[in-house]
Amino acid sequence: MIRADLVLTDFSEVATLNRGPIPRTGPAMRELGIVRDAAIAVDRGRVAWIGPERRLRRAVRLERGARTVSAAGGVAVPGFVDAHSHALFAGDRAFELEMRAAGASYTEIAREGGGLYATVRATRAASRADLLGESSIRLARMAAHGTTSIEVKTGYRLSVPGEIDLLRLIPVLAHRVGVTLVPTFLGAHGIPPEYAGRANAYVDRLVREALPAIARRRLARFCDVFCEPGFFTLEQSERLLRAAIDLGLGAKIHADEFVRSGGAQLAARLRAASADHLLASTASDRRRLATAGVTAVLLPVTAFASGRVSPARETVDAGVAVALGTDCSPNTWVESMPLVLAHAVHGGHLTPAEALTAGTVNAAHAIGLAEAGRLAVGGPADIAVFPFASVDQLGYRFDAWPSAVYRQGKLVSSR
Amino acid sequence: MIRADLVLTDFSEVATLNRGPIPRTGPAMRELGIVRDAAIAVDRGRVAWIGPERRLRRAVRLERGARTVSAAGGVAVPGFVDAHSHALFAGDRAFELEMRAAGASYTEIAREGGGLYATVRATRAASRADLLGESSIRLARMAAHGTTSIEVKTGYRLSVPGEIDLLRLIPVLAHRVGVTLVPTFLGAHGIPPEYAGRANAYVDRLVREALPAIARRRLARFCDVFCEPGFFTLEQSERLLRAAIDLGLGAKIHADEFVRSGGAQLAARLRAASADHLLASTASDRRRLATAGVTAVLLPVTAFASGRVSPARETVDAGVAVALGTDCSPNTWVESMPLVLAHAVHGGHLTPAEALTAGTVNAAHAIGLAEAGRLAVGGPADIAVFPFASVDQLGYRFDAWPSAVYRQGKLVSSR
Repeated sequence: MIRADLVLTDFSEVATLNRGPIPRTGPAMRELGIVRDAAIAVDRGRVAWIGPERRLRRAVRLERGARTVSAAGGVAVPGFVDAHSHALFAGDRAFELEMRAAGASYTEIAREGGGLYATVRATRAASRADLLGESSIRLARMAAHGTTSIEVKTGYRLSVPGEIDLLRLIPVLAHRVGVTLVPTFLGAHGIPPEYAGRANAYVDRLVREALPAIARRRLARFCDVFCEPGFFTLEQSERLLRAAIDLGLGAKIHADEFVRSGGAQLAARLRAASADHLLASTASDRRRLATAGVTAVLLPVTAFASGRVSPARETVDAGVAVALGTDCSPNTWVESMPLVLAHAVHGGHLTPAEALTAGTVNAAHAIGLAEAGRLAVGGPADIAVFPFASVDQLGYRFDAWPSAVYRQGKLVSSR
Repeated sequence: MIRADLVLTDFSEVATLNRGPIPRTGPAMRELGIVRDAAIAVDRGRVAWIGPERRLRRAVRLERGARTVSAAGGVAVPGFVDAHSHALFAGDRAFELEMRAAGASYTEIAREGGGLYATVRATRAASRADLLGESSIRLARMAAHGTTSIEVKTGYRLSVPGEIDLLRLIPVLAHRVGVTLVPTFLGAHGIPPEYAGRANAYVDRLVREALPAIARRRLARFCDVFCEPGFFTLEQSERLLRAAIDLGLGAKIHADEFVRSGGAQLAARLRAASADHLLASTASDRRRLATAGVTAVLLPVTAFASGRVSPARETVDAGVAVALGTDCSPNTWVESMPLVLAHAVHGGHLTPAEALTAGTVNAAHAIGLAEAGRLAVGGPADIAVFPFASVDQLGYRFDAWPSAVYRQGKLVSSR
């Protein structure tokens, strides 16, 4: 008999996402591993059993004091994995929307000291308590939307000590909010005002000072770079990422978001963990990513906010493993992975099943989490429960909201 | 002294939307009538007083048993008004997303018996209890997102008695959910399967049988028509709407959504209450709407889901009064007006203030509610409270969620 301290019952469907290779590509992205009329048993934060509820009594022995919670005919999916966020920042940039309404682009706003640099000023100026407070409230809302694992990038202090200090805050936030956070070093989010016109000198410092310190203390899992005109060149990006890889960090690239800078090709050459955005990438770029086994992290809400469409359909059809993220930042303040899935479906023409795969098991792969994003016996009991009768409502409805969210068997949010 | 049975305190900002003409056009759409460091007093469901909190004690006398609720530094806005919804239906159409992923258009799916007609079959087949149950849960979620007044169209039974019966359900839903619902007759949502090839005969029945019965019993405030190729021609639309106007109903048109069928021009000629969608309308159409004083009801999430962008900026700049709606339907299942505002801002390039005006006072005007959509002494205490410090976060953040929603002074939802 299998022991359990928590049993969730009365699911119309449970999407386990526990079938097929990791990451999923092509038709395998539509395989959700659904169990119908199902129950889930949890023991000490791990999935102990999943199966048709009629077999529950014979298979599982409830421990004394175990709880049983009915999902009342709802569905369960793995807690979402947000593969790309900039959720660690202070302040907001609602004021920019007047400029955007008058036709200014992101790059134009940034050039005038707005955009990224406005948030750098606010984050540098914020106290540690305020920065932790604002960010933890944001991350808690992301969890309430069903997300249990989130990649969090630095990038709003743009100095070696400032960026390293941001990395140190990420485990503090994870503990405070009760979610899994994966830290990514994005010291190369922009050229610091102090290094204007001397980007190479800043990259030097990142390579010589920041990366070795980060690797030695295991402060980050990944190193990322913003490879775009006005930010970092392809050469600077390559230099930084090669140094990171040599130190044992995974590589990520903000690739081809505004223009085709060659970021996707660089990701393929380096066999990076992921290439992110890809709005200006071409069919040949997608073929290279597929061949190199690089995961494409698509950010469809950000695409929408810049008047473009994330090439989700084309990227899946090219055989690339597609993952999804919110890109939550002061530029595109989105916290809900169900909304991201809906944008990937209604804008990017994924099927609901493909979007769910991209927002769970493939996103976990993109940020180096071997066990997250699926419901497997022995794996973490990270579960989002939704109050509708079929999993295909995710990605279909724009504002699906979970009735309960568990992370490692603990209730994170309910309504 | 003013009496109050409910006092809401500790608002950083209250946007009263109570300044300027109704509806608002042009620069007046940015005038939110903000009161800072404010409190709101409510008496028997109506706003009794709004002002700076330091003046509250002198101005307002609390009745015995009165409640005082702190907003903890949040903001208040008028409860949103959703100027266009198809929220009365049974079933869902998630299954279509596989077809859409393979490239099929809305019209193609409809032609194959999917789309609208799939929902007509489901709604005809549903029991009254199921139809009321599913729709009331949906409307309650819309209210939980901050919406206190919603236009609800018929259109998913497509027979004279069936459509009239749907109109009768709307007040039942309003009572059950505790929101204001404005019924619109959309018997001309599509040509019933029984009238295939005989659209004129169906319009005849609507004009001769349905409209007089509806007007006599005051079952609807508005008559709407789906004026698009494959649905109703411009001539049929004009005939139907003129008949409705003659009977004292307001006129609305699904205008120029797929192609420029002339719906906006017809709306201007008829001085309709609103022209809705307008994705294919031109600058000259917008000028005519402005001159005729027709409100444009824009539905930016639906525009997004069909790969287009709602021409919000152009329509405001043309001097047209712009209102917003969810268009909640099985085609675009969106319940959240804050998400609609964000789409209008990030996709349609409105400012947050313009979007808030469009989703409150202008939307109320579009559906004939003289008092809704603003916070005025003597008007209904329909209030959405949000947990952030400035109103401009609405339209900026994609997934803003109210901490409390009041309709006529009663708490509809809180979290």
